[in-house]
Amino acid sequence: MPVADPALPTAVDLILAKRDGRALTDAEIRWLIAAYTAGAVADEQMSALLMAIYFRGLAPGELRAWTSAMVSSGERLDLGSVVPPTVDKHSTGGVGDKVSLILAPLVASCGAAVPQLSGRGLGHTGGTLDKLESIPGWRAALPADEMVAVLNSVGCVICAAGAGLAPADRRLYALRDVTGTVESIPLIASSIMSKKIAEGTAALVLDVKVGRGAFMRELPAARELAETMVGLGMEAGVRTTALLTSMDAPLGRAVGNAVEVEEAVATLRGEGPPDLLEVTLALAREMLALARVEADPAAALADGRALDRYRQMIAAQGGDPDAPLPQAGHTEVVTADEDGWLRRLDARAVGVAAWRLGAGRARKEDDVNHAAGIVCLAKPGDRVTAGQPVLELRTDDETRFGPAAEALAGAVGIGSEPPAARPPVIERITA
Amino acid sequence: MPVADPALPTAVDLILAKRDGRALTDAEIRWLIAAYTAGAVADEQMSALLMAIYFRGLAPGELRAWTSAMVSSGERLDLGSVVPPTVDKHSTGGVGDKVSLILAPLVASCGAAVPQLSGRGLGHTGGTLDKLESIPGWRAALPADEMVAVLNSVGCVICAAGAGLAPADRRLYALRDVTGTVESIPLIASSIMSKKIAEGTAALVLDVKVGRGAFMRELPAARELAETMVGLGMEAGVRTTALLTSMDAPLGRAVGNAVEVEEAVATLRGEGPPDLLEVTLALAREMLALARVEADPAAALADGRALDRYRQMIAAQGGDPDAPLPQAGHTEVVTADEDGWLRRLDARAVGVAAWRLGAGRARKEDDVNHAAGIVCLAKPGDRVTAGQPVLELRTDDETRFGPAAEALAGAVGIGSEPPAARPPVIERITA
Repeated sequence: MPVADPALPTAVDLILAKRDGRALTDAEIRWLIAAYTAGAVADEQMSALLMAIYFRGLAPGELRAWTSAMVSSGERLDLGSVVPPTVDKHSTGGVGDKVSLILAPLVASCGAAVPQLSGRGLGHTGGTLDKLESIPGWRAALPADEMVAVLNSVGCVICAAGAGLAPADRRLYALRDVTGTVESIPLIASSIMSKKIAEGTAALVLDVKVGRGAFMRELPAARELAETMVGLGMEAGVRTTALLTSMDAPLGRAVGNAVEVEEAVATLRGEGPPDLLEVTLALAREMLALARVEADPAAALADGRALDRYRQMIAAQGGDPDAPLPQAGHTEVVTADEDGWLRRLDARAVGVAAWRLGAGRARKEDDVNHAAGIVCLAKPGDRVTAGQPVLELRTDDETRFGPAAEALAGAVGIGSEPPAARPPVIERITA
Repeated sequence: MPVADPALPTAVDLILAKRDGRALTDAEIRWLIAAYTAGAVADEQMSALLMAIYFRGLAPGELRAWTSAMVSSGERLDLGSVVPPTVDKHSTGGVGDKVSLILAPLVASCGAAVPQLSGRGLGHTGGTLDKLESIPGWRAALPADEMVAVLNSVGCVICAAGAGLAPADRRLYALRDVTGTVESIPLIASSIMSKKIAEGTAALVLDVKVGRGAFMRELPAARELAETMVGLGMEAGVRTTALLTSMDAPLGRAVGNAVEVEEAVATLRGEGPPDLLEVTLALAREMLALARVEADPAAALADGRALDRYRQMIAAQGGDPDAPLPQAGHTEVVTADEDGWLRRLDARAVGVAAWRLGAGRARKEDDVNHAAGIVCLAKPGDRVTAGQPVLELRTDDETRFGPAAEALAGAVGIGSEPPAARPPVIERITA
């Protein structure tokens, strides 16, 4: 529109610039995110721009400005009153990833403060809040002052991010979900980091999942995402590192909600599966190093301090750590077809199957079923014999076994040789 | 959503397929266009898909299905009751392009029937309906039966497409305009051709403009667009050819609304500028050949038959062909800076300047000013002397001279050599 003031950008100008490969300026990005948050840029314009970003990417300067504009779209938590050094962990999402439930009290029991704002399940990946809500009485939503109070009294808190935190990201996230623009490294990185920067943590460890069950299936893309996020964190004054961890098979044995809480508690008691234990301890050591706390997390697990802290954390948010968890009304097993080594247990297929059993949501508005899920009775590297149960499927709705079984077609691979072992922790990324 | 019926595609599935370079099936495209027209696919999903199409294109089969789905989204005119062979012309849009006003009565006076559904101005390019509305009393909106009646009695009609014709295109067109997804050859081709196929004409000549003032600035892109549209027309049973014509400088001398009507009438009287005459006669010959009518359009111009037919056409839609046209209250001239040959008169700059003078719309809801516009007092190839008026700017709002003059910065090029002559008609494209 040539008669409009040329000093004011329009949404169409910025879409065309990005589409044609021209970089957006800081001022244009600030205007865009503010105008979108205020409703002056329409969803259909933003989604076209997001798709152009999917194809063209964001240069480092653009990404910095984009992330910073998302932080500025809302309030920033002030954790200044928290005495111990604050350090958080964020996972890019996996199957059976109950690490946060163990890690937060474990690191807190070692002397750092863990302000963990968590999310809900997305697609085939579970959500920490959904899992904890299996516990009778436990509340995910805390006002900011109560969150800080729990953090000060217990040393850790896991709760939902308030609506005031990075509201631009909230709208963009919902938009990306329905417009096919999720899988873009700059958009993923800015979404995660804007929330973590706004959360006010002093340090952050990123658990970037790689493999069949992760959003990043290949190592180079996962590495690029990790490096991008570590860069954004450091530039915003948050000491940030990342671990790339394996997500080819589910982490641990339990996939679902209540079933994952049970496995987390078992791990806090020292009875966890080895891969889950290894990833959790590696992340804990990374967090303690960033928080400059000298402590041995393995000792805190062994002597029960971490479990005590977990029980305090649950109770502080209204949960009863001793209450029985929901149990599914129906179970079915998937058995091994032949004798041999279990070589493959496809994390994505198991995640989709658990989702279909009721552990995840078909639509955003739906509730999850806390009892539904899958227990992996064997893991890659185990020997199995024909007819031996490999997976136990749990649900309250028998009609869901069919769709779940469909998702599991080809998910279990058995061979005459043991699989090449890929370590649970693949690589460490620092600035 | 894995629990949804896998036989039904979702909008996100189709966006992801196109984004990742997988071709959409006929059934998917039919579902998509129908669901979008019905409001079941959201604008933000369609705009993301359009941007993915901008980057990935549409394969020939996809484009055919897309165009056909847009035709099927609405009604199709039945011109079966029209006795003479029907043939239409469509221009991709230029500056000073008043060809339709001359061509429709000219071809009708030679014995073919011309059912011309036209549009409004878009950006810096004018619209045939806006121009004709300069004529007191003339009505653009005709119900389908009245349109057919005028076509039968006069032999030609120029009117607005009804809302029932290709409604999917109507929504997509408005969406593309605000989402930076206009400049995509398959989207342009399917938009134009779906309307023309739905219009029911038996034959069609496309005037694809090439150059500085056209949407296609380069010959290869214009050729691709022309070939694409000719293919779509032939496949839909519409005999279609295309001419690529030059749009580096305005066509003729007049740019605006009333001023273009005046020039069209002068041309019908045999007093038209040579480039306008040449393009109009080439298109007329092409149309008559497709309609299989043997007649010499130059003779129909010379003996006044075409002008008579124009007057009947205007009168049949309530217009008074003898009424004085609106005249602008203020004029200003742009003069030559130096002596020499006029080498360049930038069509885009002149179009934008005329737009800013009021001949075009800043927003869709705005009215155009019928008196505003520009007269080119010299054209490329003319000799000019310093101080000689080259452009006359006309407007009813003096404050618009400034923005118009800004648009014209650098638009007039004068040199010591005459410009290389590019013929007005560059190339002919057939199936």
